[in-house]
Amino acid sequence: MSQGKSALEALKEKWQIISALGYTGSLMTWDQETYMPPAGASPRARASAIVGRLAHEMSTSKEYGDLLDRAEKEVEGKDPEDPDFLMVKVARRDFERNVKVPPDLVARLREAEVHGVQVWQEARKKNDFAMFAPYLQRIVDLEKELAQSLGYKEHPYDALLDAFEPEMTTSEVRALFDNLRSQLVPLVAAISDRQSMVDDAILGRHVPFQQQMSLAQDLVKLLGYDLDAGRIDISAHPFTQGLASRDVRITVRVYENRMDSCLYAAAHECGHAVYEQGIPEEFEGAPLHSPASLGVHESQSRMWENVVCRGKDFLSFYYPRIQEMLPEQFGDVSFEDFYRAVNKSVPSLIRVEADEVTYNLHIMLRFDLELGLIEGSIDVNDLPRLWNTKMEEYLGIVPDSDANGVLQDMHWSSGLFGYFPTYTIGNVMSLQLYSKAVEDYPSIPSDLSSGDIGSLLRWMREHIHVHGRKYVPQELLERATGSRLDVGPYISYLRSKYGEIYGLLEE
Amino acid sequence: MSQGKSALEALKEKWQIISALGYTGSLMTWDQETYMPPAGASPRARASAIVGRLAHEMSTSKEYGDLLDRAEKEVEGKDPEDPDFLMVKVARRDFERNVKVPPDLVARLREAEVHGVQVWQEARKKNDFAMFAPYLQRIVDLEKELAQSLGYKEHPYDALLDAFEPEMTTSEVRALFDNLRSQLVPLVAAISDRQSMVDDAILGRHVPFQQQMSLAQDLVKLLGYDLDAGRIDISAHPFTQGLASRDVRITVRVYENRMDSCLYAAAHECGHAVYEQGIPEEFEGAPLHSPASLGVHESQSRMWENVVCRGKDFLSFYYPRIQEMLPEQFGDVSFEDFYRAVNKSVPSLIRVEADEVTYNLHIMLRFDLELGLIEGSIDVNDLPRLWNTKMEEYLGIVPDSDANGVLQDMHWSSGLFGYFPTYTIGNVMSLQLYSKAVEDYPSIPSDLSSGDIGSLLRWMREHIHVHGRKYVPQELLERATGSRLDVGPYISYLRSKYGEIYGLLEE
Repeated sequence: MSQGKSALEALKEKWQIISALGYTGSLMTWDQETYMPPAGASPRARASAIVGRLAHEMSTSKEYGDLLDRAEKEVEGKDPEDPDFLMVKVARRDFERNVKVPPDLVARLREAEVHGVQVWQEARKKNDFAMFAPYLQRIVDLEKELAQSLGYKEHPYDALLDAFEPEMTTSEVRALFDNLRSQLVPLVAAISDRQSMVDDAILGRHVPFQQQMSLAQDLVKLLGYDLDAGRIDISAHPFTQGLASRDVRITVRVYENRMDSCLYAAAHECGHAVYEQGIPEEFEGAPLHSPASLGVHESQSRMWENVVCRGKDFLSFYYPRIQEMLPEQFGDVSFEDFYRAVNKSVPSLIRVEADEVTYNLHIMLRFDLELGLIEGSIDVNDLPRLWNTKMEEYLGIVPDSDANGVLQDMHWSSGLFGYFPTYTIGNVMSLQLYSKAVEDYPSIPSDLSSGDIGSLLRWMREHIHVHGRKYVPQELLERATGSRLDVGPYISYLRSKYGEIYGLLEE
Repeated sequence: MSQGKSALEALKEKWQIISALGYTGSLMTWDQETYMPPAGASPRARASAIVGRLAHEMSTSKEYGDLLDRAEKEVEGKDPEDPDFLMVKVARRDFERNVKVPPDLVARLREAEVHGVQVWQEARKKNDFAMFAPYLQRIVDLEKELAQSLGYKEHPYDALLDAFEPEMTTSEVRALFDNLRSQLVPLVAAISDRQSMVDDAILGRHVPFQQQMSLAQDLVKLLGYDLDAGRIDISAHPFTQGLASRDVRITVRVYENRMDSCLYAAAHECGHAVYEQGIPEEFEGAPLHSPASLGVHESQSRMWENVVCRGKDFLSFYYPRIQEMLPEQFGDVSFEDFYRAVNKSVPSLIRVEADEVTYNLHIMLRFDLELGLIEGSIDVNDLPRLWNTKMEEYLGIVPDSDANGVLQDMHWSSGLFGYFPTYTIGNVMSLQLYSKAVEDYPSIPSDLSSGDIGSLLRWMREHIHVHGRKYVPQELLERATGSRLDVGPYISYLRSKYGEIYGLLEE
C-alpha cells in the first residue's frame, strides 16, 4: 500500500478487483445460457470455479479483514446516509457471512450440487425420485452444516434465507405466508369453480418466431428498457443478467403456438433489467452496486409483468398495437377477450407456468417442505407423498407423476435452499410499492393507459433503484412505503382484479 | 503453500489462475465484437483492464519469480522434450519479457492506444492524417521506449517483433522480404498487364444473408471445424477467438453482393480455429496452451483459405455443392470461370481486400515504414508521402486519399508495431508446410479433390497443432519441414498457379 492512502481507499481498490472478477462471472453465466458451444461447458466450469474462488479468497483474506477494520474506524461518526459509511457497513455484513463458511464446505457443496443437478436432470426425465433421493439427502446435510457454520438466532433456515433476503427471518416468512394462504386458498377454490368463464384458446394462435421477437422488442422499449445498454437473446429459461448498469441483458423463449409466453417473459425480465439499469453507475466496483435482494428484484419483475402488462390500464393502450402487429391472429379478438385470456387463473401442476393467483401456493408448498428438511422434521424419502398431499390441500389437484411434482424445479438440486420464498415476497412487495407509487403520483393509472410508464418508473427509480444495496429489503420497503411487508395491498389487488374477471365481487 | 508441494506444482496452480483470467479476457474480447450492447463498452474496458492487470501482476510477482527459479532446478536434467521441462522453459521466456516492462509504461501505452484508436477512427473518416499525426508520434515514442525496456541485440524493432514472432529478428525478416519482393514485383506487374483475362463479376451476384451463412456452415464443417466446440457469428471484421480447445469461435461478415467475402472469411477463420481446436486439452491452464506465434497461426488460416479453398483440387469438389446450394446464382457458371474469379489478382489500395499475390507487397510497405519509425529514420509527418511512393513502387498504383492509404489500418493506432510481418511470414510458411505434407502424404491432392481434408489435417495436427507453444516458430517449422523460413515453395506455388491463370507460363 502506498503512503498516505487511507484504508477505505485501499479497500475501494480491492472492491474494484473483486467486482471486475464478478463482472467476468456474470458474462460467463450469460454466455453459458445463450451462445456457448456445448463442448465449452467443461472448460467453462473450470474457469468459472477458479475465478469465483479467487474473488472469494480476496474478500475473506486477513488483509481484507484488516482493511475493513481500519476503514470502519475511518468512517466512524460519518452521516449514516453517507455512501462511504453505507459501503463499509454492507461490506462488513458480507465479510462476516463469507468468513464463516469454511472453504472445504464450499468445495463439498459445489461438488454435491454438480452431481445433484446431473442426477436430478436424469431423474426428472425418468420420473424416478428414488434415484435422486440420496443426492438430495447429501445436499440437505451440507445445507444444514452451512446453516450451523453461518449461525442463527432462532432457526437454522434463517441462515440460508439471509443469503437471498438479508435479515429476513423464518418466523416472519411463516407469518406472512400463513396470512396469505388463508386468504388465497378460498380465492383459488372460488375461481376454480368458474373455470369456464375465461377461455384462453386465442393465445394458442400461431405467431412466428420473428414476429414474437419484434413484439417483445417493441414492448420492452415502451417499458423503459434501454436497449442501447441491453439486448434480448434466446435461452432455455428466460433470465436477466446484469454486467454493469449500462449492460443488462435479458432472454426469452418462444413457443410459436403460445404467444403469451415470450411476451410476458419479456415484460418480466424487463422489470428485472430496468431495475438493474437504474442502479447508479457511481456505485460500480463497490458493494452497493447490486439489487437489495431477490425479493426486491422480483417485486420489480412481477410488477412490470402482472400489474402493468396484465393490467387493464396499460393493456388497453398496448393491445391495439398487438393487433396492429399481428392482424391475422388478433384482428378479430376484442380487448376484453384478450385481457381475460392473459389473466386466466387455473390451478396447475407446474410452478413456472402458474398464474399470479395460484403461483404463491406453489411457493408456500416448497417453503413448508424445505423448512421441514432443514429442521429435520421431514425425511427426504417422504417428499413425493408430502408434495402431493400439499398440492391437494393448497390447489385442489394432485400431480400425475413426480416429474410434474416434486422433481419439477432445479433449485434444491443446486443447493438453493431459502430461495423460493423470495418469489412470493416479491409479489407481496410489488403491490405495496405500486400502491404507494399511485398514492404519490395519482396520474400513474391514466399515464399507463396512454402508454406512458414515465411516472411509475420515476417513482421506482427514486425509491428503489437508486439505492442499490444500501438498505436491507424491509428497511428499503419501509423507507419507500412507510410499512414493512404487508399482504394487504396484494390481497386487495387480487380480490378486485379476479373478482371482476370471475364475477366474484357480489359474494 | 502446503507442505510437500513441489515448486512446479505450485507454479502449475498459479498458471491455472492466470489462465482462467486469460480465459475471461478472451470471452470479453469475443463478446465485445459480437453481442455487447454499445453502452457496455466503458464498463467492459474497465473490467478488462483490471483483470489484465491482475494477471500481469500475478505473472511478474516476486513470488512467481521465486517459484520459477525453484521449478527450473526441479526440472533440470529432465528430457528436453518432457512437457514439464518445456512448460518451465516457455514460462521463463514469458517472465523475462514481462518483468522488463515497467507497469507505468504499460499504463501509458494503454492510454495512448485508447486515444490513438479514437482519433484514428475520426481521422480516417475525415481523411485527415495531420489530425492523427501527434497521437501516432506519441505511440511511436512509447514503442521505442518499450523496445529499450525489453532490450535487443541488433535492432530495437527485434524487441517488438518478438512479442508476435518469438526469436525472429529484423534482419531475418528483411532478408526474407527482400528476396520475396524481388520476385513478386515483376509477377504482379505481369499479371497487371493481363487484367482482362479474369472477370470476377459473377461474384457480385446477389446471395441473401441466410444462404451465405448456410454455405459458410457447410464449408467449415467439411474443413474439419468442430461446431460442437465452436460457432459462427457476425462481426464488423472477421476473427477467431479461442477460449479453450473445446471452445473456439469464429466470425464472418456478409455482403449480399459479394458472396466470396463471407465464404473465404469462413475458410480463413476456420484455419485459425482448426489450429486452436487441435492444441491438446491437457496443456490447458499452462503456458504451452497457445499457438506458437501469429505467423504460425496465419500459416494455417492462409493455407485453408488460399491453398485449399482457392485451390483447384478442393474447389473442383466443392464448387458443385455451391451450385447445388445456389442454383439461381451459379447454375450457369462453369467451374473454370468460378475458379478464375476467386483467384483474380489485381493491385488494389486496401490490404484486407488484396489477393494472395499482391497481399505481401502491402505488408512489406508497412514493414519498411514501421521499421523506419522505430529506428528514427522516418518522420511521422512524412508517412503519407512515403506511403504513396511505396505503393507506386511496389504495386504500381497511388491511393486517391490518405483514408485509402496510410490511414486504412488500425494496427499502429493500437500500438501493434511488429505485427504486420507475421501475415507474410504466415503465407511463406503455409506453402512450406503444405509442400512437406504432400511429400509425406502424397494422396493429399487427390483426397482434397474428393472433399476429404483428413490427410492434410492429420499432418497439421501431428506436426503443428499438437505442439502448442512448445517451440519457437522457426524451430517448429524446422522440425516439421526440415527447413527454416524459405520463400521457395511459396514463390513456386504462386508462379505455377497464377502463371496458369494468366497465361504467363510460356514467358
